[in-house]
Amino acid sequence: MQQKTIKIGIVGYGNLGRGVEKAIAQNPDMELTAIFTRRQPEQLTGGEGARFEHISAAEQYKGIIDVMILCGGSATDLPEQTPPMAKMFNTVDSFDTHAKIPEFYEAVNAAALEAGTLSIISTGWDPGLFSLNRLLAEAILPEGKDFTFWGKGVSQGHSDAIRRVPGVKAGVQYTVPVQEVINRIRSGETPELATRDKHLRECFVVAEEGANKVEITQTIVNMPNYFSDYDTTVTFITEEQLKAEHQGMPHGGFVIRSGITGEGTKQIIEFGLTLESNPEFTASVLVACARAGHRLSQEGSKGAKTIFDLPIGYLSPKSAEQLRRELL
Amino acid sequence: MQQKTIKIGIVGYGNLGRGVEKAIAQNPDMELTAIFTRRQPEQLTGGEGARFEHISAAEQYKGIIDVMILCGGSATDLPEQTPPMAKMFNTVDSFDTHAKIPEFYEAVNAAALEAGTLSIISTGWDPGLFSLNRLLAEAILPEGKDFTFWGKGVSQGHSDAIRRVPGVKAGVQYTVPVQEVINRIRSGETPELATRDKHLRECFVVAEEGANKVEITQTIVNMPNYFSDYDTTVTFITEEQLKAEHQGMPHGGFVIRSGITGEGTKQIIEFGLTLESNPEFTASVLVACARAGHRLSQEGSKGAKTIFDLPIGYLSPKSAEQLRRELL
Repeated sequence: MQQKTIKIGIVGYGNLGRGVEKAIAQNPDMELTAIFTRRQPEQLTGGEGARFEHISAAEQYKGIIDVMILCGGSATDLPEQTPPMAKMFNTVDSFDTHAKIPEFYEAVNAAALEAGTLSIISTGWDPGLFSLNRLLAEAILPEGKDFTFWGKGVSQGHSDAIRRVPGVKAGVQYTVPVQEVINRIRSGETPELATRDKHLRECFVVAEEGANKVEITQTIVNMPNYFSDYDTTVTFITEEQLKAEHQGMPHGGFVIRSGITGEGTKQIIEFGLTLESNPEFTASVLVACARAGHRLSQEGSKGAKTIFDLPIGYLSPKSAEQLRRELL
Repeated sequence: MQQKTIKIGIVGYGNLGRGVEKAIAQNPDMELTAIFTRRQPEQLTGGEGARFEHISAAEQYKGIIDVMILCGGSATDLPEQTPPMAKMFNTVDSFDTHAKIPEFYEAVNAAALEAGTLSIISTGWDPGLFSLNRLLAEAILPEGKDFTFWGKGVSQGHSDAIRRVPGVKAGVQYTVPVQEVINRIRSGETPELATRDKHLRECFVVAEEGANKVEITQTIVNMPNYFSDYDTTVTFITEEQLKAEHQGMPHGGFVIRSGITGEGTKQIIEFGLTLESNPEFTASVLVACARAGHRLSQEGSKGAKTIFDLPIGYLSPKSAEQLRRELL
């Protein structure tokens, strides 16, 4: 039987949106219908055959697009965009402000339940795959302790936060895990660690001409949620240095749970990612989740969901029978 | 609200069954109702308050036990035990003969659908967590290659095979992954590997008095299916050495997928386990799956399921709201 392809829309055409466009091309059961932007659509160019629309035209695609993948940022775009989009489409997003997930969930869930659509929120790798592994490891080893390390890599959220600081022209932030601590945990230790003990944050900043660098530094290192709980370094560089040395978007990290079964038997579960491109990888997770969301929606499920709510088999284009035979 | 505890039965009281008994004690939302055995139940002793019953008494617990965890072996026990138990109870098992999973699934699914029960088959860590990670990684990185490594750890099947060789009194076999190959994959290579390139097999053997050690060694290293495709070492030791140095049941391994997104961007996903006790860890996975099976069954789901079919959140005793707040 020829399956109908899953029709995908992309909202937002930055690094993540371009990653989604590329990921769709790797999945023959999917088709990119249109890319929606707040910019002038005629000014954008994408992959072969990409169709651009102004975001205000999204409504015309109701009933045509199966899943809308929202590729905006968590600070302002997604809280504004996901609920209204969920009133028209199944959606997938990567909302990643951990502390605000409960209220984001409520807003999206209300919109999706009202419209009878399904929204997978806060997916990607963290939140997303890392969350899944934290849950899995805790459920299997209830007596234990888990540790999440990020990096070394560029954090988009933290880089965006730097770039919003007055006087900053451009900038990039690397999250750097403390390797010595990871080695101790892998060897079975379960140390008490402050946020500050686990990671460093390294910022490379291009200042506007005449900007007050001391003030920029203070604003960054004291920024709540993003930097205030870490040892943060701010290094001012030129625009040329930024272009030459900081254009990649590598990332990765580990989730490790060190637990105990029986009478003190040590058991360690570890999940890790080594990514040459964070946005392309995140995009690949969003696309697999779009497949799962489409299927759940077709089964009649609705409202906001997270990766915790998905049968993982739904992420794959393969049938349950094929998965049992090939991958179990 | 006081939740009712989930009532668990254990079938089979070997290493795995004892592991399940211990794991239940770590999960306050669960309660061990009875342990079923083919032996004389009065001859067994277990943890505090454990109740033993002959396996023929299982039927009397219909409607009392919520989930029966089957702890027998895959060669003969589970194919005989899971289908009839599935006619009376929700079940969880660790059937691990990969090639026979499709036919095992059919038999259990038919029994469970007929009875309106739910059976989670072939769970543990491989099949189980490793399978889940193979699926997840393949769904996210459709262009790529994955590698599974086991060990260093004791393989029961290979140890049994050694012990069946004439002249062998006792023995244990360790599966040892080739570290150099793992390092190459972690650094981004995707080599073509023969079975022999990935693992070594180390055998420690106690010979009968007067046995021909050369002949034993030749029989082992040339044994088809078990050893002939590997570089195998055979070391003769005394019974005292076996007891002193080889009583643990450590195991573990890695599932690594090395994939490509966009235009050749390398992305690596890795899942690993370092286990001091293989049976205790497998037992902990079975117990978490019992929780998920109970919940799915309460929702009206029935038939045979695998870890691919479970919303991973169902493995946890926490509510969806709590999981989103604490673990996403």
